[in-house]
Amino acid sequence: MSRAQCEGLLGKVRQELDRTLEFWLSHSHDQEFGGFFTCLGREGAVYDDRKYIWLQGRQVWTYCRLYRKVPRFHRQELLDAAVAGGEFLIRHSAVSAASTKRAFAVTRDGRPIKVQRTIFAECFYTMAMDELWRVTGVKRYQAEAMAMMEQVSRWVREDPAGLGRPALPGAEPVNSMAVPMMLLCLVDQLEEGDEAIAGKYQELGAWSVQQILQHLQRKGAVVLETVSADGKELPGCEGRLQNPGHALEAGWFLLRYAVKHSCEELKTMAIEKFVIGPFEAGWDPEFGGLFYFLDVDGHSPTQLEWDMKLWWPHTEALIAFLLGYQVSRDPRLLQTFNHIFDYTFAHFPDREHGEWYGYLNRQGTVTHTFKGGPFKGCFHLPRCLYLCEQILDSLLGEAQAS
Amino acid sequence: MSRAQCEGLLGKVRQELDRTLEFWLSHSHDQEFGGFFTCLGREGAVYDDRKYIWLQGRQVWTYCRLYRKVPRFHRQELLDAAVAGGEFLIRHSAVSAASTKRAFAVTRDGRPIKVQRTIFAECFYTMAMDELWRVTGVKRYQAEAMAMMEQVSRWVREDPAGLGRPALPGAEPVNSMAVPMMLLCLVDQLEEGDEAIAGKYQELGAWSVQQILQHLQRKGAVVLETVSADGKELPGCEGRLQNPGHALEAGWFLLRYAVKHSCEELKTMAIEKFVIGPFEAGWDPEFGGLFYFLDVDGHSPTQLEWDMKLWWPHTEALIAFLLGYQVSRDPRLLQTFNHIFDYTFAHFPDREHGEWYGYLNRQGTVTHTFKGGPFKGCFHLPRCLYLCEQILDSLLGEAQAS
Repeated sequence: MSRAQCEGLLGKVRQELDRTLEFWLSHSHDQEFGGFFTCLGREGAVYDDRKYIWLQGRQVWTYCRLYRKVPRFHRQELLDAAVAGGEFLIRHSAVSAASTKRAFAVTRDGRPIKVQRTIFAECFYTMAMDELWRVTGVKRYQAEAMAMMEQVSRWVREDPAGLGRPALPGAEPVNSMAVPMMLLCLVDQLEEGDEAIAGKYQELGAWSVQQILQHLQRKGAVVLETVSADGKELPGCEGRLQNPGHALEAGWFLLRYAVKHSCEELKTMAIEKFVIGPFEAGWDPEFGGLFYFLDVDGHSPTQLEWDMKLWWPHTEALIAFLLGYQVSRDPRLLQTFNHIFDYTFAHFPDREHGEWYGYLNRQGTVTHTFKGGPFKGCFHLPRCLYLCEQILDSLLGEAQAS
Repeated sequence: MSRAQCEGLLGKVRQELDRTLEFWLSHSHDQEFGGFFTCLGREGAVYDDRKYIWLQGRQVWTYCRLYRKVPRFHRQELLDAAVAGGEFLIRHSAVSAASTKRAFAVTRDGRPIKVQRTIFAECFYTMAMDELWRVTGVKRYQAEAMAMMEQVSRWVREDPAGLGRPALPGAEPVNSMAVPMMLLCLVDQLEEGDEAIAGKYQELGAWSVQQILQHLQRKGAVVLETVSADGKELPGCEGRLQNPGHALEAGWFLLRYAVKHSCEELKTMAIEKFVIGPFEAGWDPEFGGLFYFLDVDGHSPTQLEWDMKLWWPHTEALIAFLLGYQVSRDPRLLQTFNHIFDYTFAHFPDREHGEWYGYLNRQGTVTHTFKGGPFKGCFHLPRCLYLCEQILDSLLGEAQAS
């Protein structure tokens, strides 16, 4: 990448990150109960005050991470809001006082409305608590993170009974890619700067990588979203489902792991099979953008929204290709990064009110005008922009040094 | 309606019903295990062999009802398939041997995969069993229907604990329109030709009507999908949600009830508030067709598929407007029926392979090529065509007599 090109990209990414944070700082803080409103309309008005625990945890994580790593975000208002969000999570996210299970959604004042029979609310709780400990130094937050990590790991690897799913004779256990991806992400989070914790979770990290690699099917030609517990392709729609954005996210998770563990073979596999492959499978040749879902045999996916273009697969693709380029210096990856960047920055940002639209139809027209909702909060977009800024900064440093 | 117009419509509707039944008779029967494949591609090939209990019950009901009411469908192959489907439901739909709760989905050979914490699988089980009793005379089927009806009614009006939903402090009980609609539909089904049963369920029918009418909000201006248990508008997205096709379905349910009970006031209210109102709210002025979801205050609905055009709201609209016309002879209703008919018959039918596409984008282009899926079986379309044929037959009889 030329120095001029790198500077150009860096300017755009940094400006977009500033605008994005400004949106959430201006509109999402619940000053009365703590935590965050995430159902925010185009201009930032709250259109629903329900609180989604995934999104509460993600916003705490985002604020803390930026406060800790990006000097211009080392601001008291981010720290204060993150602490208020963390305290809200500790007080109000448990399904009941006796339970470690976290709710999916709660009322504005923190009474549980809905529970999912999955691990995800608990995983984002763990990420929030760990990052909060790193910025505040308060040990209780780390203790919360470590205890929840143990619980999540037990649910996944020993006994899922506490998740509340009934055991049904026709429901074979499956390997759903989100689960090892989450665990790998948590290991990466918790082990930062602590060799003892890194050692403790080394086996879990390696196991998560192997579980993710089981999704590579058909002699390495495709990444499938759900496989059998012993790593075989499943019959029917469930087995044929592809989620290109999710595969790309797995791609950069694997690549980070490969870099950290200096594993050349895994670097190559991550780039070829989990970055380039899913992009080629998932990019719409007619209108551009990544499809949300595909069926590997070309049937119509049964998901009604399969052909929509969502913001988050594009943020994952940007991270995956830029990190892939940084690691490999393969110009093909930079070229595709630029292609995705152009589509994404042309279609998703709202130049007038800041932040990005989340949902476009296949043709690229905005279908939902809100900036946040039950599944879109302050996470994928700022995480992408922060990581891209980091990588571009590093590339620019090299260019200046040379 | 002129005689020529009526004959023209009747010809189209009858032909479409024949083509639709032919599709299911040719492609959906599981000769080995009984029951029906519903995941059928454009040409009828099975792309997934999972069985959805709602759709099994609905297809049994459809086959029996046509066998019983439409002479040209009084064919052994419909009866045999319906009995095989009914026996599959009796043997394989329970979540466990000790449970009255029915599964949502089972494997091809009938092992439960998934359970919903709602009443709908059980409601369609009831409809199937009652209709099966009417065509076979086998008392066991009626006993199954009556026992399940009691169970459903207890879950709704006395104690929902058996549905398996955890009681959460933030989850206030709500009145979701689907629940009283289903109960009203079941009362209508079970009481046919039996005054004792009609008497037994008279109170439940009247209660269901009142529960549906609670969804009329804002001084009668709008039908909302979910209201509080005491009939007030709820805050947030949940409270503002409109589902025009569902309101239109409620419209013709109310209208049938009003005709049966000679209730003039309810006839007028059903037509004005649950037929004309939801059509005007739900029809896309730009591209035609009924939106799937709307937010009554004009926010973007959070459902990703909100602007899609689904087959079933259009089938409900056709029934609602044609029945409304039959009852009122208001020419506005016939005019709108024709408008909906033209859009629907121009966009949904597959002239080459029969049956209808289920899902179009806002612009009216087919997004999913399959004819059946996890939520589309042999029910809404044949029910619509059968009811429209009945009404048109009756109107034609009047035209010929006059």
